[in-house]
Amino acid sequence: MKTNTNPAEGMRDIMPKEIELRTYVASKIVDVYKKFGFVQIETPCVERIQFLTSGDGGDNEKMLFKILKRGEKLDLETASGVHDLVDMGLRYDLTVPLCRFYANNRTKLPTHFKTIQIGNVWRAERPQKGRFRQFTQCDIDIIGVHSVLAETQLILATSEALQTIGFSNFTIRINDRRMLEALATHCGFDATSFEKVFITLDKLDKIGINGVQQELEKAEYPTETIQKFIQIVQVALQSTISVHEIASMLPTVSEQVVAALNQVIETISSVSNGKINIKFDLSLVRGMGYYTGQIFEIGIDGYGSSIAGGGRYNKMIAKILNEKTDIPACGFSIGFERVISILTEQNFVVPTTQQKLVILFSDDAPETLCNVLKMAAEHRQNGNSVSIELHHKKNTKKQLDDLKADGFTAFAIYQPDVALQFKPLS
Amino acid sequence: MKTNTNPAEGMRDIMPKEIELRTYVASKIVDVYKKFGFVQIETPCVERIQFLTSGDGGDNEKMLFKILKRGEKLDLETASGVHDLVDMGLRYDLTVPLCRFYANNRTKLPTHFKTIQIGNVWRAERPQKGRFRQFTQCDIDIIGVHSVLAETQLILATSEALQTIGFSNFTIRINDRRMLEALATHCGFDATSFEKVFITLDKLDKIGINGVQQELEKAEYPTETIQKFIQIVQVALQSTISVHEIASMLPTVSEQVVAALNQVIETISSVSNGKINIKFDLSLVRGMGYYTGQIFEIGIDGYGSSIAGGGRYNKMIAKILNEKTDIPACGFSIGFERVISILTEQNFVVPTTQQKLVILFSDDAPETLCNVLKMAAEHRQNGNSVSIELHHKKNTKKQLDDLKADGFTAFAIYQPDVALQFKPLS
Repeated sequence: MKTNTNPAEGMRDIMPKEIELRTYVASKIVDVYKKFGFVQIETPCVERIQFLTSGDGGDNEKMLFKILKRGEKLDLETASGVHDLVDMGLRYDLTVPLCRFYANNRTKLPTHFKTIQIGNVWRAERPQKGRFRQFTQCDIDIIGVHSVLAETQLILATSEALQTIGFSNFTIRINDRRMLEALATHCGFDATSFEKVFITLDKLDKIGINGVQQELEKAEYPTETIQKFIQIVQVALQSTISVHEIASMLPTVSEQVVAALNQVIETISSVSNGKINIKFDLSLVRGMGYYTGQIFEIGIDGYGSSIAGGGRYNKMIAKILNEKTDIPACGFSIGFERVISILTEQNFVVPTTQQKLVILFSDDAPETLCNVLKMAAEHRQNGNSVSIELHHKKNTKKQLDDLKADGFTAFAIYQPDVALQFKPLS
Repeated sequence: MKTNTNPAEGMRDIMPKEIELRTYVASKIVDVYKKFGFVQIETPCVERIQFLTSGDGGDNEKMLFKILKRGEKLDLETASGVHDLVDMGLRYDLTVPLCRFYANNRTKLPTHFKTIQIGNVWRAERPQKGRFRQFTQCDIDIIGVHSVLAETQLILATSEALQTIGFSNFTIRINDRRMLEALATHCGFDATSFEKVFITLDKLDKIGINGVQQELEKAEYPTETIQKFIQIVQVALQSTISVHEIASMLPTVSEQVVAALNQVIETISSVSNGKINIKFDLSLVRGMGYYTGQIFEIGIDGYGSSIAGGGRYNKMIAKILNEKTDIPACGFSIGFERVISILTEQNFVVPTTQQKLVILFSDDAPETLCNVLKMAAEHRQNGNSVSIELHHKKNTKKQLDDLKADGFTAFAIYQPDVALQFKPLS
């Protein structure tokens, strides 16, 4: 019986043309980040189950691929549940592993650690078109910096990375978790319901302000609280309103938080000569519960979902180390798969100067093969790609058509003692 | 309590300096392979458990990381064993996934498919110094080519890849599985014991000819058979002996097999002007049972274990497709981790023209930060890496020492309205 040769459910094979695009995009992004002084690290794809189920991963933890214990450690007889059967899992993001990495290696790392990670993560999402269970993330993080020095550098570097791969029209939205908390506090929500309220607010893009109101009503929060909340959000949605004006409606927010938000917005605008479009958005939430300060997101104008997102998470590393003092950390993640899918949609062509040549020859008799291989080597010296293939004399036309379809740009037919003459495939 | 922040057992974190080396080496290898006309593909790290337990993986299958079923599919109550609990696993090599990939996508692929894969694989080996449970493999394969055109191109491309990253003194050993089978047949071993006999012969490097003899005696093969075997192997070990001379001692080996071995050896020597050292070695076995023809291995002179290995496997894809006709396939795998560890031992320095600059500044007041970020952007324009850091005025010397240790090459101290003056960190 023929085996099912499809990739495992929700996984996929990637063909040469897409790999070329992915490699190009990844190297361009990494080059920009390196120019900003970031250095690349790598953590294993597999982590201890404890790290992946600590709660920091939010909903991602529900989508964990768990790895079975091995050897003596696996005892099906005495196992009382899944927790007895597994000891590791596949990482669902690069932030939780980074925190473990930093906690484990910090004595060897710079005080201000600026790092790049690019790698695969896995989530057992319900398989659906265009979403896969293995996908690539591309993160930069700055650990050890309390000041907005971190936020501004992350935003400038990520913007330049996106510009370098051809995105010019994008908007950065920025908010601060502490603004959101001040908003919820001021309206009278209970601290225990903050996360739920924020998750509802996060759907504003999709369900509109009325949808948000209905969802809050359904959750049976006090009417007055909901009204106050909706009213402020509506005011905040006006494009001309300043951070200060919104902050003035939120009595518990600190001046420092407001000043820092303003500083980041103004610095980015000034350093980029207004070329980077950044605006405060009180309705920006970012899903993860671990954020403690500023949060930000980049959307490409004309495309729905965001292309990059991040924020400050000052508590996660200290939590792993069980230390009381915050260890400041701030990160920005490019949605690599989203970038690839938009570039593919736009028929982006990877720039190359390399010719793809092919030499056709008639037989693999020792002398012929030797000659052809030597000629191929010569033509490779200037950087061209040179393949050699047996000539299908009976159907040359089809062979040339196929070679063209496979991306070859020119061909030559080998003849003994005659210099090769390449002709374009067209 | 402080969490254990080490990577999961047998896994490891990779620091920036090593990532630089790995990225450099990988890109150099891939560049060479592309010049030979290979195109890169990627398969998922996770495969269906059926593919990873088909028997083609040999001992690697015993070291499989298995992934627990999820949701409704996982039923601990009714599970009668591990096979009921798992549906996928982490790939242990790149060859088995490639065969599935080819079987799945062949209508979209060139008739002669020349492909590069570089990616992580996982094996639950007993953790030991320098061996990790996640490691990178770098393979090229040619599918669809019956002729030694495949073998010669694989060997030439891999040799050039190794030369490009600085290895000059290496030796390629070549053999053919059919020579080994003819040897075993001729000596009187039973076909069912071939694999065991070959595994013993494979230890020749480590245990010597006497060790091989003792192991065969211990397995209680007929004395005459063992004597005949040892005698031929001893003759074959003489460095001056030709493939033909050895073949003349093995009556069942076909002329075609011998001619093909000779052709590959002579072609490689001729095309490389004798710069690639290749020799026939009847004691070369290669571990995997799926090989059907020529097998080869590269060792760096002066280093023990091999740095690359491969061979022809004409049956594996047809087996997956349940087709009767062989689908010719041939591959060569570079031991990427071995390459990295040898280069690290040799203190290999990744060539770069990029300066790593750092600008120190005193405070993150809005105006200062803006100015410094603008200056940094200017100095990045010629490709340099430019970081910005707050100046520790109380201990400048220590800060500069630390920056030097972190790889920075020059620093400048920001002063308002004064052009930056970079001084080398030394």
